[in-house]
Amino acid sequence: MKLYDWPFAPNPRRVRMFLAEKGLGVTVEEVGGPNVTLKPESVARFDPHATAPTLELDDGTCISESMAICRYFEELHPEPRLMGRDAKDKAIVEMWERRAYEGAMLAIGELLRNTNPAFVDRGRGRHARFTKSADKQLAHNRFLAGAAFSVADVTAYYALEFLNRAVKMPIPDALGNLRRGFDEFSACPSAAATA
Amino acid sequence: MKLYDWPFAPNPRRVRMFLAEKGLGVTVEEVGGPNVTLKPESVARFDPHATAPTLELDDGTCISESMAICRYFEELHPEPRLMGRDAKDKAIVEMWERRAYEGAMLAIGELLRNTNPAFVDRGRGRHARFTKSADKQLAHNRFLAGAAFSVADVTAYYALEFLNRAVKMPIPDALGNLRRGFDEFSACPSAAATA
Repeated sequence: MKLYDWPFAPNPRRVRMFLAEKGLGVTVEEVGGPNVTLKPESVARFDPHATAPTLELDDGTCISESMAICRYFEELHPEPRLMGRDAKDKAIVEMWERRAYEGAMLAIGELLRNTNPAFVDRGRGRHARFTKSADKQLAHNRFLAGAAFSVADVTAYYALEFLNRAVKMPIPDALGNLRRGFDEFSACPSAAATA
Repeated sequence: MKLYDWPFAPNPRRVRMFLAEKGLGVTVEEVGGPNVTLKPESVARFDPHATAPTLELDDGTCISESMAICRYFEELHPEPRLMGRDAKDKAIVEMWERRAYEGAMLAIGELLRNTNPAFVDRGRGRHARFTKSADKQLAHNRFLAGAAFSVADVTAYYALEFLNRAVKMPIPDALGNLRRGFDEFSACPSAAATA
């Protein structure tokens, strides 16, 4: 089994933090450089969608999409649970993970890769809507999906971390709950391991 | 338990087809009209993200995001499996569902709600990339995630059906495998039930 990684990008970092939280070691091969230049030829070999991360299983099956890779490990190594324990938990984690993905991860592409003002405006709008709702959620919950840490937090953290690092868009001071959650998250060992 | 539905839109239809495949009956309340005008006040009451579908549980918990609602029912009523059986299956289903969502569902907003040519171009690009890869996958597999019908097919179908119905963008004739899969899907009883 091998994980094709691109350390610069937020999606592969989600998977590496997930593995660190599970305490799992996986062979990693880097397919991109330290900056924004991914080497598509090295990824396209195994994945027509040409994205990192991709997990290559021993039978040659390639799994791309960060959450699909996480799902694979969650099923094989359930503890600690990062995608919910019962039906309701799992649904709430999935709801918040999808909101974080659309509200923050997708905004990255719109803000980083575009010179077209319409895309930049949409990216800012996505970002603002999500951060506002996440801040509200964190006013009464320690984590996005409730009392337990989950992939929803992982997705939100790496998207917000990247927006701050690469686009210079920090969490607004007015969103104190989100700010506090982000700072706590930054300090945990598995986040430090992917920094 | 109650499902807030908006029959016009592709996301709620995904959930209704999923429930039909599972053979589950759920109380449904319509919150939108027959055209593109959703009534946001009726949805915002229970969901700050103001989206349909939303599933309201008996304890008042509201689950939005179609796949989170499907996950809830898949956990409580596993058979027939629509989100994969083992770890590898589940990962492959999730990978294709995410691809279908980004490659077709997200294109809908870009094509339908925009007069800005940059968004329309991006919507067309997303759509073209996804349909090409899905066609290739269906050359050797009956369904997107392999031998078994799954939520990946549900997402792809309702997005493609909507693009054809509302945006007049049919599947190109050159993509014969995808075209055949779509036609087979249209003919199945649970798809007919949501038409």
